Amino acid sequence: MDPVHVVEVKEAVLADNDAAAQLNRDKMKEQGTVLVNLMGSPGAGKTSTLLQLIRRLKDAFRIAVMEADVDSDVDAKTIAETGVRVIQLHTAGLCHMDADMTRRGLEAMGTEDLDLIFLENIGNLVCPAEFEIGADLRLMILSVPEGDDKPLKYPLMFTVSDVMIVNKIDTAPIFDFDLEAAAMRARKLNPDIRIFPVSAVSGEGFDALAAYLADVVRERRAAYENH
Amino acid sequence: MDPVHVVEVKEAVLADNDAAAQLNRDKMKEQGTVLVNLMGSPGAGKTSTLLQLIRRLKDAFRIAVMEADVDSDVDAKTIAETGVRVIQLHTAGLCHMDADMTRRGLEAMGTEDLDLIFLENIGNLVCPAEFEIGADLRLMILSVPEGDDKPLKYPLMFTVSDVMIVNKIDTAPIFDFDLEAAAMRARKLNPDIRIFPVSAVSGEGFDALAAYLADVVRERRAAYENH
Repeated sequence: MDPVHVVEVKEAVLADNDAAAQLNRDKMKEQGTVLVNLMGSPGAGKTSTLLQLIRRLKDAFRIAVMEADVDSDVDAKTIAETGVRVIQLHTAGLCHMDADMTRRGLEAMGTEDLDLIFLENIGNLVCPAEFEIGADLRLMILSVPEGDDKPLKYPLMFTVSDVMIVNKIDTAPIFDFDLEAAAMRARKLNPDIRIFPVSAVSGEGFDALAAYLADVVRERRAAYENH
Repeated sequence: MDPVHVVEVKEAVLADNDAAAQLNRDKMKEQGTVLVNLMGSPGAGKTSTLLQLIRRLKDAFRIAVMEADVDSDVDAKTIAETGVRVIQLHTAGLCHMDADMTRRGLEAMGTEDLDLIFLENIGNLVCPAEFEIGADLRLMILSVPEGDDKPLKYPLMFTVSDVMIVNKIDTAPIFDFDLEAAAMRARKLNPDIRIFPVSAVSGEGFDALAAYLADVVRERRAAYENH
């Protein structure tokens, strides 16, 4: 296995993050690529969720992953084993990725030949929600052991996300986790949020999530080809 | 039950956080109080850990809790049921408490008659580790479902903490969690870190942690009384 490509992305942040996000969004649209911002707490299962999705999507689409971390490259190494392109981004202690850091990651990785790019954001339910990166989709993971009250305590994350993935659903009885209560709290903040209960260990629920993502990618490709 | 006292602590941050932390530290020492900074991911079990500790310590010591949250007051209400003094701090979206925010919380709550104060920090493994608040002890919780690799990915939190509480230890077999591996990774960053495996649901392991905290509080009281 080749050594993981590591890029240090911590630098002065652009004054206008939203403008930088729009540049990323325009570039992705222009080249027919879908950019996904994957967020969640430490240990929610972001990397294992990516493994399940990549397994289901890599034959149909050209996929790459940017792994953001304050340190280490353990996740990038895990993803590299799937054979998809992967790059490790180090934020040098920063608790989130912003749009310009994302742009530098995209440029270092190369994106022109890709259909689908995942950014695995820093494990954190607070800061990543505040920084638009120019993604086409924001996926957040709530894992069952964290508790069904999390939408009450970290409302912005649930408000800005297009999808709530409820991971480790097989452990719901052990943790007294009420999926309906979690869903109701998330929908109160964000009536349009899509909810996918999954287990990244068993693979349960991932066919539906992969099919949803495949539709988004196909739609983007069709728009690109008819352009 | 009285309504929970909520204080909005988000304001301009002092330029020198370490100097502000030292002021808090001096004040606590002067009045014979121990201040504990409790940190961990969302859902790691910070509030349920406090419930177990309060139950074991409240007859011997005068205890209070400051609950920091970006929003909501669910945790403060839970703590209020134990009968100890509690105050809710809202950080208005900020991902951590700093020393001056802590000072304002302490002043709003009143601390002169207390032996032991817990600050439950924002659920986050990144930002709270970067901001000294002037605590006598830094307790961090790693919960089993988060995984035994977290010291590799969030090294600063494990480096600055005096104690690593490994919560939800009863679920270690389900999550394939290797306590020895987690302990070794934490000690590589911080050879002096004390490690307490616990279950905040069953109460397992909390007698030892409560005894350790009681020793710290008694030592501070003795120094105060001999002053």
